[in-house]
Amino acid sequence: MSGSIYGNLFKISTWGESHGKGIGVVVDGCPAGLILTEDMIQSYLDRRRPGQTKFATQRNESDSVEILSGTFLQKTTGTPISMVVMNTNQRSGDYNDIASYYRPGHADYTFNQKYGFRDYRGGGRSSGRETIGRVAAGAVAKAILSQLGIEVCAYTKSIGDIKIDYKECNKDNILISPLAMPDLNASVKAEAFLEDKMKEMDSAGGVIECIISGMPAGVGEPVFEKLDANLGKAILSIGAVKGIEFGSGFNAPLLSGSENNDSFRYNDGKVIKLTNNAGGILGGISDGSEIIFRAAIKPTPSIAKAQKTINLSGENIDISVKGRHDPIIVPRAVVVVESMAAITLVDMLFMSMTSNMRSIVNFFNMR
Amino acid sequence: MSGSIYGNLFKISTWGESHGKGIGVVVDGCPAGLILTEDMIQSYLDRRRPGQTKFATQRNESDSVEILSGTFLQKTTGTPISMVVMNTNQRSGDYNDIASYYRPGHADYTFNQKYGFRDYRGGGRSSGRETIGRVAAGAVAKAILSQLGIEVCAYTKSIGDIKIDYKECNKDNILISPLAMPDLNASVKAEAFLEDKMKEMDSAGGVIECIISGMPAGVGEPVFEKLDANLGKAILSIGAVKGIEFGSGFNAPLLSGSENNDSFRYNDGKVIKLTNNAGGILGGISDGSEIIFRAAIKPTPSIAKAQKTINLSGENIDISVKGRHDPIIVPRAVVVVESMAAITLVDMLFMSMTSNMRSIVNFFNMR
Amino acid sequence: MSGSIYGNLFKISTWGESHGKGIGVVVDGCPAGLILTEDMIQSYLDRRRPGQTKFATQRNESDSVEILSGTFLQKTTGTPISMVVMNTNQRSGDYNDIASYYRPGHADYTFNQKYGFRDYRGGGRSSGRETIGRVAAGAVAKAILSQLGIEVCAYTKSIGDIKIDYKECNKDNILISPLAMPDLNASVKAEAFLEDKMKEMDSAGGVIECIISGMPAGVGEPVFEKLDANLGKAILSIGAVKGIEFGSGFNAPLLSGSENNDSFRYNDGKVIKLTNNAGGILGGISDGSEIIFRAAIKPTPSIAKAQKTINLSGENIDISVKGRHDPIIVPRAVVVVESMAAITLVDMLFMSMTSNMRSIVNFFNMR
Amino acid sequence: MSGSIYGNLFKISTWGESHGKGIGVVVDGCPAGLILTEDMIQSYLDRRRPGQTKFATQRNESDSVEILSGTFLQKTTGTPISMVVMNTNQRSGDYNDIASYYRPGHADYTFNQKYGFRDYRGGGRSSGRETIGRVAAGAVAKAILSQLGIEVCAYTKSIGDIKIDYKECNKDNILISPLAMPDLNASVKAEAFLEDKMKEMDSAGGVIECIISGMPAGVGEPVFEKLDANLGKAILSIGAVKGIEFGSGFNAPLLSGSENNDSFRYNDGKVIKLTNNAGGILGGISDGSEIIFRAAIKPTPSIAKAQKTINLSGENIDISVKGRHDPIIVPRAVVVVESMAAITLVDMLFMSMTSNMRSIVNFFNMR
Repeated sequence: MSGSIYGNLFKISTWGESHGKGIGVVVDGCPAGLILTEDMIQSYLDRRRPGQTKFATQRNESDSVEILSGTFLQKTTGTPISMVVMNTNQRSGDYNDIASYYRPGHADYTFNQKYGFRDYRGGGRSSGRETIGRVAAGAVAKAILSQLGIEVCAYTKSIGDIKIDYKECNKDNILISPLAMPDLNASVKAEAFLEDKMKEMDSAGGVIECIISGMPAGVGEPVFEKLDANLGKAILSIGAVKGIEFGSGFNAPLLSGSENNDSFRYNDGKVIKLTNNAGGILGGISDGSEIIFRAAIKPTPSIAKAQKTINLSGENIDISVKGRHDPIIVPRAVVVVESMAAITLVDMLFMSMTSNMRSIVNFFNMR
Repeated sequence: MSGSIYGNLFKISTWGESHGKGIGVVVDGCPAGLILTEDMIQSYLDRRRPGQTKFATQRNESDSVEILSGTFLQKTTGTPISMVVMNTNQRSGDYNDIASYYRPGHADYTFNQKYGFRDYRGGGRSSGRETIGRVAAGAVAKAILSQLGIEVCAYTKSIGDIKIDYKECNKDNILISPLAMPDLNASVKAEAFLEDKMKEMDSAGGVIECIISGMPAGVGEPVFEKLDANLGKAILSIGAVKGIEFGSGFNAPLLSGSENNDSFRYNDGKVIKLTNNAGGILGGISDGSEIIFRAAIKPTPSIAKAQKTINLSGENIDISVKGRHDPIIVPRAVVVVESMAAITLVDMLFMSMTSNMRSIVNFFNMR
Repeated sequence: MSGSIYGNLFKISTWGESHGKGIGVVVDGCPAGLILTEDMIQSYLDRRRPGQTKFATQRNESDSVEILSGTFLQKTTGTPISMVVMNTNQRSGDYNDIASYYRPGHADYTFNQKYGFRDYRGGGRSSGRETIGRVAAGAVAKAILSQLGIEVCAYTKSIGDIKIDYKECNKDNILISPLAMPDLNASVKAEAFLEDKMKEMDSAGGVIECIISGMPAGVGEPVFEKLDANLGKAILSIGAVKGIEFGSGFNAPLLSGSENNDSFRYNDGKVIKLTNNAGGILGGISDGSEIIFRAAIKPTPSIAKAQKTINLSGENIDISVKGRHDPIIVPRAVVVVESMAAITLVDMLFMSMTSNMRSIVNFFNMR
Repeated sequence: MSGSIYGNLFKISTWGESHGKGIGVVVDGCPAGLILTEDMIQSYLDRRRPGQTKFATQRNESDSVEILSGTFLQKTTGTPISMVVMNTNQRSGDYNDIASYYRPGHADYTFNQKYGFRDYRGGGRSSGRETIGRVAAGAVAKAILSQLGIEVCAYTKSIGDIKIDYKECNKDNILISPLAMPDLNASVKAEAFLEDKMKEMDSAGGVIECIISGMPAGVGEPVFEKLDANLGKAILSIGAVKGIEFGSGFNAPLLSGSENNDSFRYNDGKVIKLTNNAGGILGGISDGSEIIFRAAIKPTPSIAKAQKTINLSGENIDISVKGRHDPIIVPRAVVVVESMAAITLVDMLFMSMTSNMRSIVNFFNMR
């Protein structure tokens, strides 16, 4: 089956392995007339680039993107946008030993069960480098959303048990923290916590929160193609995500209906809700308030600490994973979460354009 | 956009409103040669049928299913299976008042924003009755899974803050509890808790856990079509679900890598994992152990207690929702969760059949 | 695989067998706010209804449609429209003998090869009655097109070697001819030709031409989702269609480039083409002129004349197909061609709405 | 909308413009374990490479393919295969003048209507170079088919009115003729015919026939996803194709049922058909005999002869198309037809694997 293509009207097709020639994405369905340059894409890729802090893998890659098609005179033409990042710092030798065993918490075993063998170098297709394609496509999606006044903003909500309460979504603070944690006091605590984990040759996880503002009401479809269902799939398709919740989420079961329901009120003629336990989505359709969700990210499975596993010769063995790994995935995953959310929003905004006949007639009359 | 069709190779197309003529589903892509009778479907529909306990709406419906196509001599023919449940106990009059305002926590406002108007009778398409189509299709999916030795079993894990620790998934106990809560002591406590909520004219939510056993390793695709991503979409597409987590889920961020990783071991030549924090899925692909996920269900939004909202005349008003409502959705949603999981599993099992060339060659040689 | 669902944004899901309980379709993705009644659907179904002329099967069916969902106060709500025609004149006994052999020109053999067995009564799912679902959905599509000023009109272009040259597409003449052949002199000749065929216990085929007027330029996608490619699939999915051609079609290879190219000219400031060899489509995209295609329909395979075939017991036998069959399929297929074209046009019009950024921004600003 | 992605289980995503940086394709859904090298791809690309005969454009391109992902140790891994051909001989200057007007028979006008502007260099995305992605993907599809004993073979059936009757499909003769016309006497006549056209500064078209042997019976779905419907879409999506017919095709309407039906017979216990008017497909499903179709290719629209058209300044003008053009597209389109057919066959073979329950149970038991 083909599992590296995502979306309906705004479709992305990603490819590439950790230690292959490169990583890329084709964006099919981007409307014509959007200003798009390599710099715009690069600024997002730089947010997930390795080697920038001590909390990220020391693999040294510039991750420079090249646009190969789909733009003309710096504007999109409506045809597929092919973007490539060539790999430059592969050290496949690091991975020769992992060819013979299955790393716990990784997809080594399941790939072999599925495909009969695997490209074991750096995790092959199941490497975190796979997300380069998502982020490049996310940059295109964000350029579209920006034209529609919609902003997608994610940050690190917690690392281990260090949790912040952050209402505004201010990019400045998020980009200042090496952990994408905009409460800078908490960020310092989390850095200390991570340094301890690194000394223990262990790793940590965390929670990412994403806030989407400017969404018009009426986007999302009422049954299977609910906005939250599609955002859920998008985010759960990111490696290491173990859960997602919207609005009051896993706290909702502890509330009564009267507590969890959001009251509607008119405010200067505009419809507002007094609370937002719904996370901006009612019946699968955006209600015009902020869309809020949180994703649980597991601790990095690659750790230097000894672990029990099996090898392909049928033996129980103890291993210690070598190579250049992130002690925590969360900070670099923030822009991936934003990207997958943005791609999904564009797709669902486009799909919502045929909801009612009057708008369709207007659209074609206007042309 | 068309949002009432779900699946790729095993596709379902549901239709129907709470107070329309009926509710139904067309299953397209069911293999030929499967024994399928109306009784088999009915037994699942009976698990979500209203009016069976005091904790469910008192709407009196037999919800009798009729198969209109796709079977011949009690076997599926490979062509679409159309199944219908006619509505018999509509009391549209109950809902005339809700035509003029938006119920908090419901899709009334978002439907109007999206479509310009809505079939307000009993929530129309966004009613819980919509799930009849899902459950009828789920019954077909379960019949297929049964042929492959796969079982899907869900139950009520918690109601409010009453939470059970249940390892086995024994249908007997689940069906004995009026709340689908197999720890019967906890079930009694939860019944008392709900009676209090009902006296307060309020409602409650809970958590459903689903355990899938017998899954072969190697099912699910590594990037966007991860098994957990698709199960996530399926479950989040059920109304009232606010979150989903797999394995250690939202607890994973509190663990270190060495705690969260599941060690592999050979056991009599078979591969086992010593723990199952992964919830049976590694890198989006089943690892051969049990698949475990939990869904957070919000409290029923329809409550008799007074609530603030707005009407279509531009006024802030207070309302009390009349009609026949469930004080809790969780127990009746258990079979819906099972159904959506089963439908997704069948689809992904089918899609996994083309993963490697050797199996494909064998398949065509064998015919 | 699921093969009874068609479309992307405007999706139809058909079901039903010739001698099952009924035939139906679910239309998913119809915009809200369209006036839609059973009478509107019925008028199209009546054009393909059996028993109306001596050139059609004498099976006596009223083919009365019922709308089960998706409308409220005679307007579509945006949710799935389920439509059903119950079978009332099944005479399964007629078909008992065909259970044991394969009719030449039919799908009996291929169904058995694919599914292992088949519902042999009246051809089961591969009966011409399957097209009821297409026509009911086509009626919905035509109602949408009508709001956009687009008309789809098909007629019988030839029967055997009796061929007409018809430029205008006037429904009146088409509906007067029992063969949907608007040149009434030719129609009389074709009737005589068919009576001869019937006396010979044989059957005939013909060509249907379809003309689409009012299409805006710019609809269709430039590579795989070309407008002609999708119309081609739609029409070739109708049983008995053996070929399709657009504009100059199979005559194009006999022309030179200078003859086949259509010259552009301004006419009162409007862009026109001096000829229409392209059939209204350039590079897969509508050019604003009439879209014209022709479909080749094979002679009805069910004939009373003796034929050679095989039975399931491994014997070579001679058979004569009994039952109630059409001596020609063409006249009743005309409305099916219109329907499939209309469904495809709606889908592609909807998909074209996201072609350029300016229109999208306008759309969302306008809401 | 996204129109450059094709297929369901075997999916291809093409990109690139005539005068952009390159042309490529991502193949998603290729099974693991298939031997695949750049040489295998290159041998197909060489068949459509420009500049090899005087009947093709003199643009000098080596069209060298590079595989960027999806293989490891010369075998496919099951992950996306990204293939790229960089453009090396762009002469954009040739096309500056066409920026200001619409070439008859080309997509210039429709692109501008759809997207608001266009990459006019060499036709941009609507150039014949777009087919490089199709052919590279077709090479992968053919490698899969080869493992299953299926061969796809196309050749030039006619050029202008020079038509050949060719029963066998022998690659040797096809590759000897510069026009892919295996009757070498006819080929010489056609070469003379084309030289005349070239002297007249005009162009020609022709018909390509494609024969598929080794197909198992039972592939294709009975309603919308008929094998012929999908082949039809695939072939009609190739630029310049104006029609397609299967088996007796447009001749079928001239036959009676008794003439057009193919009789079944047992031959040494094997089922055969005495004729093949069906073209190997009955009811949309392969019947085990050869699949035969023909595609009508229009004359190249780019001609040096003077033509009437309009410019963007609102004027009626006369033009003569400069640049390096093929006097006939047919010979180079032969491998494109084979490729699109092969891609479609792989997809439909894969989809047919879930037709019946017994095969599915066997498949999973066997693993």
